[in-house]
Amino acid sequence: MNTITYQGIKGAFSYLTAVNAFGKDNHYLPSKTFNDAFENISTGKADFGMIPIENSLIGSIYENYDLLNSYDLKIVGEHFTRIEHCLMTLPGNSMEQIKKVLSHPKALEQCKGFFQKHPHIEAIVHEDTAAAAAEIAAFKHSEYGAIASASAAEIYGLQILKRGIEDDSSNYTRFVTVTKRPNFDKQADKCSLMVQLEHTPGSLAKALVQFEGLNLTKIESRPIRGKPFNYLFYVDFEFIGHRQREIENMLKKFTNVQKLTVFGFYKKGILWTT
Amino acid sequence: MNTITYQGIKGAFSYLTAVNAFGKDNHYLPSKTFNDAFENISTGKADFGMIPIENSLIGSIYENYDLLNSYDLKIVGEHFTRIEHCLMTLPGNSMEQIKKVLSHPKALEQCKGFFQKHPHIEAIVHEDTAAAAAEIAAFKHSEYGAIASASAAEIYGLQILKRGIEDDSSNYTRFVTVTKRPNFDKQADKCSLMVQLEHTPGSLAKALVQFEGLNLTKIESRPIRGKPFNYLFYVDFEFIGHRQREIENMLKKFTNVQKLTVFGFYKKGILWTT
Repeated sequence: MNTITYQGIKGAFSYLTAVNAFGKDNHYLPSKTFNDAFENISTGKADFGMIPIENSLIGSIYENYDLLNSYDLKIVGEHFTRIEHCLMTLPGNSMEQIKKVLSHPKALEQCKGFFQKHPHIEAIVHEDTAAAAAEIAAFKHSEYGAIASASAAEIYGLQILKRGIEDDSSNYTRFVTVTKRPNFDKQADKCSLMVQLEHTPGSLAKALVQFEGLNLTKIESRPIRGKPFNYLFYVDFEFIGHRQREIENMLKKFTNVQKLTVFGFYKKGILWTT
Repeated sequence: MNTITYQGIKGAFSYLTAVNAFGKDNHYLPSKTFNDAFENISTGKADFGMIPIENSLIGSIYENYDLLNSYDLKIVGEHFTRIEHCLMTLPGNSMEQIKKVLSHPKALEQCKGFFQKHPHIEAIVHEDTAAAAAEIAAFKHSEYGAIASASAAEIYGLQILKRGIEDDSSNYTRFVTVTKRPNFDKQADKCSLMVQLEHTPGSLAKALVQFEGLNLTKIESRPIRGKPFNYLFYVDFEFIGHRQREIENMLKKFTNVQKLTVFGFYKKGILWTT
């Protein structure tokens, strides 16, 4: 049995993704913040963490890239979760009774159209989608709704008034599984890394050329905080299995980079729906 | 006199950036949405638009990249605006009276620490920072605060209770000026473009190699909505002035790309504080 940590509470999309990946017969440890999740894995309180790294509508979740940069953990898996937002209330309530809806700011923003159609409903920021559902259930708030996953409604005994209220249905989040001591995975066919560049004109282009021949699937440059005009970039690439050692050697020979950190070699994920 | 449009109302960061760039003696046309702003420029109701394209904490604003892809407008300028969030109320109110704070979801998220320190204050989503300030002033809401720019407080006659309440002070937004018919700018030393790639392994690396020798400052790959495993990427690069024609010719010779759209050649911007 493993302990898997995630940010949020039971019913959060991170929790659902973790259970889908590892199965029910494990211990699931909620962490209040992403920082706490990384700390719990680093100190051995959890064997694995399920961490969102990118959303198809919002883009990269930089906070977690920053944590990958500062903790010595490795990515060992990848999961794409279709995000379906549901409006839920206490059982028996109708749409007309709802005056306020609680959810995470990102979820509220993804449901902008719903609030435009219902101008009498106030959108109120909560720290977490599932926690919003739990709060309504615990305090029996009859004028409140929450936006969360269908599973959160089930877990906290709420009824779903409307499914799929997000503006854009091509909404999915990419999660990575991180751990302290990864096993070598022969099946690995994807790699994520961070490269920090020298502060010279053309350094980004010079670094990029060295990726020729690899099947890049993501590349993103980011300014480095507090160091204007210096930057790093995040790269993902796929490769045919059984080539990890060869690629590790190739990366060691990279020039024109100040620092190169491999976040991990892992098997590429598939899309699933909660 | 020019007409410059921006998303939001008077006092919004887009408005402040536009006035800083063009000067007071022009006509400023508010647009309800980014889509409306592009439409107003496209139909000639506005000569220019001031459009946010990227934020240092949040990353790219994909909505506006999508609009750049679908409208035939060109970028002709760039501006970096330091974002300082202020908490404001009706004059004479104290922190203890405030029960609710209105703002744009992105602003609320950037001030997470403030709400953690004041757990009795509810964070309520509003469509716009400046509009939140205007609403409190218009309705004389004494239990409400707004998070907006210092200028919004001045414009709507509110008092500032706290300045700089954002979690991270390295918060700035990059704006671009867009127009329908740009003049050729000899001083241009920066270019933004979009490249759409063929769906073949290694196509991203093959395209990137052709940027060798250019001083890339941003590169970001994005999945194409509704076309899994096809993607495009956004590139910015800088060059020494007076080379625009030469670079245009170079871009025409690019191979391994399905589509290349130049968003514009312009003079690179500097950072200013509202």
